[in-house]
Amino acid sequence: MKNIIKLRAPVAVTASASAVGKAEHDGPLGALFDLHDESDTFGAQSFELAEGEMQRQALNTAVFKAGIRENDIDIILAGDLQNQCVASNIGLLSYPVPMAGLFGACSTIAEALALGALLTDGGYVKTAAAVASSHNCAAERQFRLPLEYGGQRTPTAQWTVTGAGAFILRTDGGGKRPRISDVLIGRRIDSGINDAANMGAAMAPAAADSLLRYFSDSGTSPSCYDMILTGDLGAEGAYHLERLMAENGFPLAGRHRDCGLLIYDRLTADVHSGGSGCGCSACVLSAYILPQLECGQLSDIIFTATGALMSPTSVAEGQAIPGIAHVIHLMRGEGE
Amino acid sequence: MKNIIKLRAPVAVTASASAVGKAEHDGPLGALFDLHDESDTFGAQSFELAEGEMQRQALNTAVFKAGIRENDIDIILAGDLQNQCVASNIGLLSYPVPMAGLFGACSTIAEALALGALLTDGGYVKTAAAVASSHNCAAERQFRLPLEYGGQRTPTAQWTVTGAGAFILRTDGGGKRPRISDVLIGRRIDSGINDAANMGAAMAPAAADSLLRYFSDSGTSPSCYDMILTGDLGAEGAYHLERLMAENGFPLAGRHRDCGLLIYDRLTADVHSGGSGCGCSACVLSAYILPQLECGQLSDIIFTATGALMSPTSVAEGQAIPGIAHVIHLMRGEGE
Repeated sequence: MKNIIKLRAPVAVTASASAVGKAEHDGPLGALFDLHDESDTFGAQSFELAEGEMQRQALNTAVFKAGIRENDIDIILAGDLQNQCVASNIGLLSYPVPMAGLFGACSTIAEALALGALLTDGGYVKTAAAVASSHNCAAERQFRLPLEYGGQRTPTAQWTVTGAGAFILRTDGGGKRPRISDVLIGRRIDSGINDAANMGAAMAPAAADSLLRYFSDSGTSPSCYDMILTGDLGAEGAYHLERLMAENGFPLAGRHRDCGLLIYDRLTADVHSGGSGCGCSACVLSAYILPQLECGQLSDIIFTATGALMSPTSVAEGQAIPGIAHVIHLMRGEGE
Repeated sequence: MKNIIKLRAPVAVTASASAVGKAEHDGPLGALFDLHDESDTFGAQSFELAEGEMQRQALNTAVFKAGIRENDIDIILAGDLQNQCVASNIGLLSYPVPMAGLFGACSTIAEALALGALLTDGGYVKTAAAVASSHNCAAERQFRLPLEYGGQRTPTAQWTVTGAGAFILRTDGGGKRPRISDVLIGRRIDSGINDAANMGAAMAPAAADSLLRYFSDSGTSPSCYDMILTGDLGAEGAYHLERLMAENGFPLAGRHRDCGLLIYDRLTADVHSGGSGCGCSACVLSAYILPQLECGQLSDIIFTATGALMSPTSVAEGQAIPGIAHVIHLMRGEGE
């Protein structure tokens, strides 16, 4: 079994972009996102189509920032939370380029960045695009209840982020842009949680498994990095992850941040345990973390997006909710 | 935009296995599948769990045939038709190894083989497993109607195959086993079809797009290969593909076979346009095609699995059903 997969040479995230809804724009990172829509519809006729349109606008913006054209993309690696990943497949239809659809639940952007970095590093493609999204209104009625029902949510429940992130990966021309030096693909960990309103608890053991594999294989510890950034564990999951890491001899020592806790102000936004969804870590990474890696405020971080692997049917049947977490090692670019 | 992606050296499909349900075992290829269950349940409590169990049994068998242990697998690339790909994510839980979830509808096994071959060829992993499945009963009630409803099906409708295929990919030790020499990742093609009961028409233009890109880029034509094998176009889709290829100057010239037409006897089985589903091409490739490549009856084929990218919600909203088709170039092994 493989743990860390090293790249021959770091792959640059030459550009990235984010698009979010109103709640995310109202949050503490609001001003940092490239695009937002107060109506959450992005001009589309349904919430499902809105998610696809949000992806398209995020990728358009990333492509523009990278100074490339849509046809320069050799492969799009994309996924989302909608059944059969239709937000990506239909939303990005205007991109007439090869595409590999991914499903990793909320870990999707890390899966896309990992596979994109490997395909780019291997010389199989020159330019890869990694894209992921989620939309609160599309997710709520698909996974839980119609919005109109106004169902009460439990304290451990998370709030699906309305957001999309898009990243352009290339081996050359990165300049000072952040680089991916190595990745680790996650294993599915079933820790006996089958409560869809407690995804943090379902995902935390998977995050711990991947981080422990990473630190063991690399001979490093959390203190070797400026930040250990998790995808969207929320308050509940972050608590469990920090506990599990400390119990296993790798305390995160104040270096842990979680995208699900960064994106909303939990004192004012009614998001319970925090943000979640494929779009959560994708847009926080693009808007808040990568700029810090570019300007030097951060120089070496571990990013691990986490996913809860379930469907409405599997939850109704009482099946397990395995977690998964993929790791991306991001460093400051060294070019001019 | 990238067309054909060549491998540095051919990657061997060192072993493969298939598991199917009753209808598939009753079909013309019935005796060739490794495993089957007359009850379609594989001992599981629901059709959804049965699909996961079928995947697990297929992968177990492939691992046994390859003479490896489950821990020798560096990455599993797997997907299925169930919402959020839970058949793969939950069914393969007993495999404690890294996994990347894929969604490519019925093209999934080609996507998995393509990415697995690239990661193996690049030296990023030594052993990759590609797995895909579908289950008629799980798919019918998810995509269409409860089985008990007994709804009438249109002539262009296809019958979702109850089947799973698993493939082990390695760069070494292939002997005479079939090898992948190059791949092409498909583009999504929207040809205006939004009838979920006519997936053949939705997928055929994507198959034509990928095959035309392949032949143009390689400077070859269909007659250069022993077989052009499509995933699951069925009778309707096969007709459209052959027409489109002829119109574009690359007639398939009697070399075209379709897994959806091979797996059932349409004169006796009530499958209308033929078989479909991620499991269709996966189990036909494993049970019927790879053995012919191993013994020399075939020596050089093009395999293109096709997918119709839709969800129950996207169909209900009248959205497009884009098709996608990935190409795998398979050759006879040359070792002893």
